[in-house]
Amino acid sequence: MTPSSLARGGLDLGGTKIQAVVTGRAAKVVGHARRDTPRRGGAEAVVRDLAITIREAAADAGLRLSELGGVGVGVPGEIDMGEGTVTQVANIEEWEKEYPLAAELSNALGGLPVSLGNDVTVAVEAERRYGAGRGLRSFLGVFWGTGVGGGLVVDGRLLRGRGSAGEIGHVCVKSGGRRCACGLRGCLEAYAGRAALEQRARREARRRKTVLFDLMRQRGRDRLTSGIWLRALDAGDAVARDLLDDAVAALGVGIGSAVTLLDVEAVIVGGGLGERLGPSWLKRIEKAARPHTFFHTRPVYRLAELGDMGGAIGASLLVPARRGA
Amino acid sequence: MTPSSLARGGLDLGGTKIQAVVTGRAAKVVGHARRDTPRRGGAEAVVRDLAITIREAAADAGLRLSELGGVGVGVPGEIDMGEGTVTQVANIEEWEKEYPLAAELSNALGGLPVSLGNDVTVAVEAERRYGAGRGLRSFLGVFWGTGVGGGLVVDGRLLRGRGSAGEIGHVCVKSGGRRCACGLRGCLEAYAGRAALEQRARREARRRKTVLFDLMRQRGRDRLTSGIWLRALDAGDAVARDLLDDAVAALGVGIGSAVTLLDVEAVIVGGGLGERLGPSWLKRIEKAARPHTFFHTRPVYRLAELGDMGGAIGASLLVPARRGA
Repeated sequence: MTPSSLARGGLDLGGTKIQAVVTGRAAKVVGHARRDTPRRGGAEAVVRDLAITIREAAADAGLRLSELGGVGVGVPGEIDMGEGTVTQVANIEEWEKEYPLAAELSNALGGLPVSLGNDVTVAVEAERRYGAGRGLRSFLGVFWGTGVGGGLVVDGRLLRGRGSAGEIGHVCVKSGGRRCACGLRGCLEAYAGRAALEQRARREARRRKTVLFDLMRQRGRDRLTSGIWLRALDAGDAVARDLLDDAVAALGVGIGSAVTLLDVEAVIVGGGLGERLGPSWLKRIEKAARPHTFFHTRPVYRLAELGDMGGAIGASLLVPARRGA
Repeated sequence: MTPSSLARGGLDLGGTKIQAVVTGRAAKVVGHARRDTPRRGGAEAVVRDLAITIREAAADAGLRLSELGGVGVGVPGEIDMGEGTVTQVANIEEWEKEYPLAAELSNALGGLPVSLGNDVTVAVEAERRYGAGRGLRSFLGVFWGTGVGGGLVVDGRLLRGRGSAGEIGHVCVKSGGRRCACGLRGCLEAYAGRAALEQRARREARRRKTVLFDLMRQRGRDRLTSGIWLRALDAGDAVARDLLDDAVAALGVGIGSAVTLLDVEAVIVGGGLGERLGPSWLKRIEKAARPHTFFHTRPVYRLAELGDMGGAIGASLLVPARRGA
């Protein structure tokens, strides 16, 4: 791809995997790579693997790293954009304190400029510009995966609040309810996030038959991935079905309340579970939200379009545009 | 007051009362009047009484009606701004169908221009420009009265969504909970609105002692006004206390969730109950919201500043500015 000044690197750092892309004009993916997020070694190990993955993506695009205009990273946590530090991180093991990720990764990439953003925020921005949000003045993005992330577009722009707007995963769906990993009780994420679902599945498995963990072992995994949930449903597994039904009910309360409050044109559902479960479950979510949606407002429900590279594509948009880009 | 071209009329149409103001430069109130909302006669009776009240406010300002640049009306319902019609109205008895309020009121006022807005929206706009919201980039306004109204300011501007953003009163605080007047279940308003509180108080009064209805009769009222609730609290009434405690718990869930989603700088609480109960109850609301507020965000809590004329002041802002205004 030439001119190389258009090429940008994007990294999506997830709790399970690292996804890297190199994007060209109009955020078109011209190279990609992925690997598992390291389980040990904390931030230093993550930096090493982020660097490896983006190098592989550049190679896949037929480019040298130095030909990229820079690299953006979507991080599951809190960012100090000015400092380029990660002040708080979720779902990455052995990474506990504030860390100068931009500087360290730039160092590992021979001085290439590195920009940081919140993983969900960049994914919403990617959907707004190049995905299911194109042409919409307002939408609520819901990323249903390990956790439940969210982002808000109003008046055609991403709403940032004071930095953390859109946290629909921590909207209360049951007052005094289940404890969430964030410390609050009754959060949507505590009912619908894949991590919370897996915890509940482990408890259920002690007293009910389920194929969930058999499928996990057969596929050589040690977590219940979105694909495993889908296979369990296809096999008629009642535990999987009941837990996902509960998750959908919780999504309905949280999304319905958010729509009531924001009167957005659309709800866009993505994330690992959102994508794998697809249109029929999107319909269920819409149906579950209706009894909690004020009568004035009837948004359309859409699946996210950019798939599991959406976060990395969005991260690449963090790289400042260059002349000719 | 001269020049009269600066003077604007504002009418706040509430379920209980009509408040009229005439405002001058910087929305300063230069005349006002109020009367009870008619209980019979529907929209026609309302138009007649709106006209009487704004005439009285103009007289109070020492102005002829024709000296006003126009009249704005804040309506508790849905407005078609282009048509000047009220498409749906809440809490006004015997007014059930779509009604051309702007044209009819203009007619009753000798052809004076009339603009319509949502009552809560205009009150939030008034607080943003001239009240507790001055200087804030973002806040959630909560009007705790007969119902629970809300408005959102983000990026320094009122968020309208597709026309009905801000409906915090219909955010779900208890899935499958109490039926709300709007038809949904578990809405904040069904737990915290004064109309819902009165219904519950009537039921409680059958089995517990309460001074609420004695106070109502002593004061010659047929509804439990905000002032009566305050007096009952002052008298140590346990029913009033328990119901308001429940209301505050519900406000905590709804406001906490909204803050989590929007990451606003401030929460501004007004409305009849918000104002009458004052700073100590504002603190209770803040405390009740904290367990439902995601850790990233800590808004300040403020009382609305414009008092019970805020809605009418906001309505006067609907009148287009004139030369010299």
